[in-house]
Amino acid sequence: MELRLFVKLLLIGRDKMKEKINKLATKLEEKIISYRRDFHKYPESAWTEFRTASKVAARLDDLGYDLKIAKEVIDEKNRMGVPSNELLDKEYERAKDQGADLEFIDEFKGGYTGVVGILKNGEGPTIAFRFDMDAVDVEESNSKKHIPFKKDFASKNKGVMHACGHDGHTAIGLIFAELLINIKDDFSGTIKVIFQPAEEGVRGAKSMAESGIVDDVDYLFGLHLGMAADSNGEVFAGTKGFLATSKFDAYFTGAPSHAGASPELGKNALLAAANAVQNLYAISRNSKGVTRINVGKMNSGSGRNVIAKNAHLVIETRGKTSALNDYMYKRAMKILKTSAEMYENKLEIEAMGGAKSGKSDSKLIKRIMNIAENLDDFSSVNKISELGGSEDFTYFMDKVQDNGGLVSYMVLGTELAGDHHTAEFDINEKSLIKGVKLLANLVIDIAN
Amino acid sequence: MELRLFVKLLLIGRDKMKEKINKLATKLEEKIISYRRDFHKYPESAWTEFRTASKVAARLDDLGYDLKIAKEVIDEKNRMGVPSNELLDKEYERAKDQGADLEFIDEFKGGYTGVVGILKNGEGPTIAFRFDMDAVDVEESNSKKHIPFKKDFASKNKGVMHACGHDGHTAIGLIFAELLINIKDDFSGTIKVIFQPAEEGVRGAKSMAESGIVDDVDYLFGLHLGMAADSNGEVFAGTKGFLATSKFDAYFTGAPSHAGASPELGKNALLAAANAVQNLYAISRNSKGVTRINVGKMNSGSGRNVIAKNAHLVIETRGKTSALNDYMYKRAMKILKTSAEMYENKLEIEAMGGAKSGKSDSKLIKRIMNIAENLDDFSSVNKISELGGSEDFTYFMDKVQDNGGLVSYMVLGTELAGDHHTAEFDINEKSLIKGVKLLANLVIDIAN
Amino acid sequence: MELRLFVKLLLIGRDKMKEKINKLATKLEEKIISYRRDFHKYPESAWTEFRTASKVAARLDDLGYDLKIAKEVIDEKNRMGVPSNELLDKEYERAKDQGADLEFIDEFKGGYTGVVGILKNGEGPTIAFRFDMDAVDVEESNSKKHIPFKKDFASKNKGVMHACGHDGHTAIGLIFAELLINIKDDFSGTIKVIFQPAEEGVRGAKSMAESGIVDDVDYLFGLHLGMAADSNGEVFAGTKGFLATSKFDAYFTGAPSHAGASPELGKNALLAAANAVQNLYAISRNSKGVTRINVGKMNSGSGRNVIAKNAHLVIETRGKTSALNDYMYKRAMKILKTSAEMYENKLEIEAMGGAKSGKSDSKLIKRIMNIAENLDDFSSVNKISELGGSEDFTYFMDKVQDNGGLVSYMVLGTELAGDHHTAEFDINEKSLIKGVKLLANLVIDIAN
Amino acid sequence: MELRLFVKLLLIGRDKMKEKINKLATKLEEKIISYRRDFHKYPESAWTEFRTASKVAARLDDLGYDLKIAKEVIDEKNRMGVPSNELLDKEYERAKDQGADLEFIDEFKGGYTGVVGILKNGEGPTIAFRFDMDAVDVEESNSKKHIPFKKDFASKNKGVMHACGHDGHTAIGLIFAELLINIKDDFSGTIKVIFQPAEEGVRGAKSMAESGIVDDVDYLFGLHLGMAADSNGEVFAGTKGFLATSKFDAYFTGAPSHAGASPELGKNALLAAANAVQNLYAISRNSKGVTRINVGKMNSGSGRNVIAKNAHLVIETRGKTSALNDYMYKRAMKILKTSAEMYENKLEIEAMGGAKSGKSDSKLIKRIMNIAENLDDFSSVNKISELGGSEDFTYFMDKVQDNGGLVSYMVLGTELAGDHHTAEFDINEKSLIKGVKLLANLVIDIAN
Repeated sequence: MELRLFVKLLLIGRDKMKEKINKLATKLEEKIISYRRDFHKYPESAWTEFRTASKVAARLDDLGYDLKIAKEVIDEKNRMGVPSNELLDKEYERAKDQGADLEFIDEFKGGYTGVVGILKNGEGPTIAFRFDMDAVDVEESNSKKHIPFKKDFASKNKGVMHACGHDGHTAIGLIFAELLINIKDDFSGTIKVIFQPAEEGVRGAKSMAESGIVDDVDYLFGLHLGMAADSNGEVFAGTKGFLATSKFDAYFTGAPSHAGASPELGKNALLAAANAVQNLYAISRNSKGVTRINVGKMNSGSGRNVIAKNAHLVIETRGKTSALNDYMYKRAMKILKTSAEMYENKLEIEAMGGAKSGKSDSKLIKRIMNIAENLDDFSSVNKISELGGSEDFTYFMDKVQDNGGLVSYMVLGTELAGDHHTAEFDINEKSLIKGVKLLANLVIDIAN
Repeated sequence: MELRLFVKLLLIGRDKMKEKINKLATKLEEKIISYRRDFHKYPESAWTEFRTASKVAARLDDLGYDLKIAKEVIDEKNRMGVPSNELLDKEYERAKDQGADLEFIDEFKGGYTGVVGILKNGEGPTIAFRFDMDAVDVEESNSKKHIPFKKDFASKNKGVMHACGHDGHTAIGLIFAELLINIKDDFSGTIKVIFQPAEEGVRGAKSMAESGIVDDVDYLFGLHLGMAADSNGEVFAGTKGFLATSKFDAYFTGAPSHAGASPELGKNALLAAANAVQNLYAISRNSKGVTRINVGKMNSGSGRNVIAKNAHLVIETRGKTSALNDYMYKRAMKILKTSAEMYENKLEIEAMGGAKSGKSDSKLIKRIMNIAENLDDFSSVNKISELGGSEDFTYFMDKVQDNGGLVSYMVLGTELAGDHHTAEFDINEKSLIKGVKLLANLVIDIAN
Repeated sequence: MELRLFVKLLLIGRDKMKEKINKLATKLEEKIISYRRDFHKYPESAWTEFRTASKVAARLDDLGYDLKIAKEVIDEKNRMGVPSNELLDKEYERAKDQGADLEFIDEFKGGYTGVVGILKNGEGPTIAFRFDMDAVDVEESNSKKHIPFKKDFASKNKGVMHACGHDGHTAIGLIFAELLINIKDDFSGTIKVIFQPAEEGVRGAKSMAESGIVDDVDYLFGLHLGMAADSNGEVFAGTKGFLATSKFDAYFTGAPSHAGASPELGKNALLAAANAVQNLYAISRNSKGVTRINVGKMNSGSGRNVIAKNAHLVIETRGKTSALNDYMYKRAMKILKTSAEMYENKLEIEAMGGAKSGKSDSKLIKRIMNIAENLDDFSSVNKISELGGSEDFTYFMDKVQDNGGLVSYMVLGTELAGDHHTAEFDINEKSLIKGVKLLANLVIDIAN
Repeated sequence: MELRLFVKLLLIGRDKMKEKINKLATKLEEKIISYRRDFHKYPESAWTEFRTASKVAARLDDLGYDLKIAKEVIDEKNRMGVPSNELLDKEYERAKDQGADLEFIDEFKGGYTGVVGILKNGEGPTIAFRFDMDAVDVEESNSKKHIPFKKDFASKNKGVMHACGHDGHTAIGLIFAELLINIKDDFSGTIKVIFQPAEEGVRGAKSMAESGIVDDVDYLFGLHLGMAADSNGEVFAGTKGFLATSKFDAYFTGAPSHAGASPELGKNALLAAANAVQNLYAISRNSKGVTRINVGKMNSGSGRNVIAKNAHLVIETRGKTSALNDYMYKRAMKILKTSAEMYENKLEIEAMGGAKSGKSDSKLIKRIMNIAENLDDFSSVNKISELGGSEDFTYFMDKVQDNGGLVSYMVLGTELAGDHHTAEFDINEKSLIKGVKLLANLVIDIAN
């Protein structure tokens, strides 16, 4: 067979699959919106996604996916920024009251709210997709103009809101998983759909990546709604510029004493921490690239006339590369340690979050652009979006790329009613099914 | 008449009055204890003494004293460390529920909880006595060994307790006022009984002193239970060594910005405050005498990735003399102001308390010793107690001494069940009536 | 005439001129080397170029250029980092001893060592060329391998050395000026040859630019030997990436006092400066691009037991753009000012140097490349060199570009015996005449 | 024998000795003045007392004292603030030129300029006297009013001057030693005359005390001219209030790097030192008593655009007691050490001086007063002078008192032409012989 003929047949096959997927997707469009609204109504913040995770697990189980959940996919030592047991228990009860799936919810107790569905479908590559499930600590708008409020699916959980689109991500993940079952005969390989808790504050991915769940993955995809792509029909095939970051808290413990009667007996934690703050901001700029440091909060002391015994600093470092972030982190540790010693304080550091730097593979980006351009859903197909923030998807990314796999993190356009993380945030729900179609076509392309 | 004879007659008169006072006092002993227990059961913290003040006002009114209360004796501009209106309102309602005098309570609304009773009783010197009424933020012991708990007059107000003896001071003041009415014919002059709010945190006296209430006073007395005099029958005729102090809060207001995306747009209040802290502790020692500085608390910032917009410092300075405290205060202001400017922050200072240095007049001390030694109540009459702490009685003291009057602050011994400001604090109630007798004999001695 | 024919004629004309210039240059080759060696032997550091400037002035005068010198081309207020009068006087005498031109030297007294030669040669554009004349504070090598030492033209001035190639720049400038006289009939326009003092430490250009000397310039060229172009026959037609910088000294003046007897009377300049240092390094990173801050030196205090009265900080800021450097400078000023105020110190700032950011115009770069490629002198013609450092040529650049003129700063390749600013620095003298030829051909190209 | 008779005989004996000493002293009066003028003319600063020490040694040897000198009485490890070898050598040569005793001078080479003369004179107590020999770094006045200048015995050593009276102390010591030889038969015991170098900057006594030279001493006397006793005929029998002090230098060594190109490679010594400075001044006040800290000098860095590699801090701590000074010193060390570590600097501390707190024994003070009052030399005999400064005599004092011995440090009145350590300082030479007489009478009193 001539190459030209072969390509032509391929293209004919591709187009046939596109049509098949289009039809299946059309039937699922109403369902994806109802899923999204359900998740939107019951938003759950990091490590308390008891309702969401249990529903996801139940649905994947129904669809016939093998399940790995909770401690199977969450490495305990690598969880960061986990709330208190008290709060976890309270949220667990709340989730039960809000219709969590009772068959699965107990597994997640203690905040191990990760779910992975695995579909072994013959020989072929292992392809993973990551969806994040958690909401943000924002109070949702109750303006008449705010559609979730008007249509009565605004947050029932005070102070928590899906203001970053993860409700949409989770809905896409579940409908994508359902659609794949309907085209099982059209591809050959293994699919992993990864539902991650605690992306906000970059707290959850590390523990899932360290569980080994992506160690055998050949292709990995992540996707985010909105961001730079703020209109329906727009898509970015890849991203670059994720900043590596470390988020951590520092606790100084000194000794109190009466500030008038015996100040010399105190071991002043407030002064030790203030000294650390000054020196943290003075960490040298680095000629290798962009770095950042911030002490976002400081709380210290108990009373006006007492030398402060305790101080708590809330800190983050960032770097354009993981190496630059490591430089900042190492310098910060040295400064915190020596400031504590200077005032004879004890120092404890608690890791609260983290992400690596990372960029999508250009080879895979080209493949995605090719497919997206062939679909009828995207009027604007772009190569790469430069994101300035941090995403803990990078922990998965790093593992897969280290093993020679290819990774891309895509951005799916949608009109935004307000900025990310604000009370007015809302998406155009029509974008959701487009995401499903893109992912399904990617599977056909790769696992064929 | 020979001098010797004259003195003899005088002494005979004095002893007769001593006996008269003894008899009156004996009758009031039960009452003073019941007063004290009533105040102990309903402790009220600074500026919320609605129940106490209204009861004091009502009783003085009954006894025939002229009343000056609330804004008549509290200069609004000089109140310090006043709670929020919300809290004042809540405490006002609480006081009503706990049996405040409804005729008077409305006058104190807004936290103007000062009362002065005036007894004009012929020509003669004006003699003032100051009693403080407020309680401390301490949770009272519910141990069986704790007498207030066992005898059921422990605090009904959670987290508030008369753990410094002001319940006793108020009881002494009222019974003393009552006894004076019974010996009106035996002295000639004007009596002022001053009931002050908010001595804890040295917040209340300045506003009363600035109201002019002691401007015409020739003799002023203050008294404290316990302290260094920890057994019944002990008394100190005077004190010295009060440290001058300023208590104030500093509020920095800068501008927030995203710590990763645009740190240069922030005006970092946390860093400004940390810099102030370092320099506050570095204020130069002073060759003129003891000074102190403390930043007891620092709270700043809203989120890990936000340049902090606000910072709040809780500060106190002290000095062996008012001049030394002024030196510290002035340096602290300069440091706070320039630190705020350095980071383009706005700075607000809120005065939260203050006291002057001060010492009792030795002439008056001798007189008090003379009298105390002649009474049968005191087995140990001491000259002077060196107190290291601060007392806002010094504002009254300063006014009176400036006008050429004489002042003493006495310490009345009593067995203490626990240290001042601890949950186990309790006094020997037998000491209370001794205080009344001492004060009454002082009046006879001076206003004769 | 057809365009093609016209271009052909033009090219023929250009080639004829190239040949003419080649011949003239060949005759001047020996002379340019002797000039360079003469300047090399008597290096003069910033603002003390009495010998060099007087010789340059005398030579330009001889050649028939109109002269503008000293205060005519140096704006007094904008000189930076000028040595003490004592040192200026000493160097003036030294220069006389070393053969300065006695007709001109007096004009430069006080350190106004700038020279501009102007050749008005008919209608046409005004084209300026800038050459820097000062040497560096480096002790020259006396190794046998070091050619200037071996051939006996090493520095006679201890601790001063032409270790950055400005001797070559000055020689190129003079020989270029001479050659132009020989081709006066071949171009039409005005030529300005600018000989600048004090480029090291970026101290001199601002004062010349502010004198107005380049206000009427249409084309401006600068050139540097060596740098990234480290072999003969290499040339860069343009540059980008000059960092904007401010170099300044801060002087704190407080009040001394005995540290044991009366520390409170001191106004501690050492502590004020230390506080400034900490906060200078803590100036926020800027999301707009690269910034730098350094306090390179601090000297403070007079004796162990004296509160320090004086402190001296040696500071520089940098920014990828002038705006970024301005941000750093403005923040630094605020910090210095408020630190001084905090300790009741007086603050004086002395500007010690500065440069802007800047990049060559791409239109002019193309023209230069075209010409250079046509010459036989350059085997490697490159577009643009990214320089990380600072050059005060940018002050001239900024003026000319602001007025709509075109500017380029070229790099002329030469083999380097050691790095710039080291004792072993030396150039390949064969490169010098190539620079002259390039400049002469540029004149022909532009002013025709 | 009745006690009364015995006392009478004693008093008669005492008065006879007083007369004998008076006569001997009168003969020595001219000599003591010539000694003093000789030392005044050739002042030598700390550790360079080559001329003085060699002359003292030679004279004591002549008189028949056993000598212990140089390393026998100077413990090498405990010398502080010793000048460079270069300077020591230079001063050694200078001393030779100025008439040092050539027999002894070589022993002192390297700056071991201590001398002790021992007179074993039968059974009895061991009594030591300490005289300090060094001059101050002050330029002597050449005013006509300044007697040393007028009478031609002003300092021949530029910038060095006996502006604290140690020339007088040394003269008193030598004449006292001579007089004792003449009254050898009148007392019984061992005499040690200790001539100490480097009292200025409290650098020398520790090394002598640590050599063991006062370990067997029962009575120790020090004496100072002038101070609070500013007229001839005045004397203080004892002193109190010497501040304990530590004088030391801190050297930070980091790593340089180019501040523009690679600031992150630097280990910033200037910043480390600035941070130390801020925290040193912030060492907590101590409720136990007066403390002081000062960083008198800071020198750091090499160039504007280089991250500073070195920093040098000149520091002193003080305390009302040795324990308070130890507290300050310990806190300072912790701060210096951790500041260096924070910036990965190496830290070296060099002890530069030190003194203990101390006070004279009241038992001995009474004895001295008794004797002084019996002499005809003193019109004003005072008990105790409160000195605020530091004296390293306290190291000897501490050793002797620790072993149960008695110590006093006396102040000998004299008219002062200018304050101590000023160019106009001068004494009334008539006071000198009075000091000798007082010391001699003390020996008779104690060793009898």
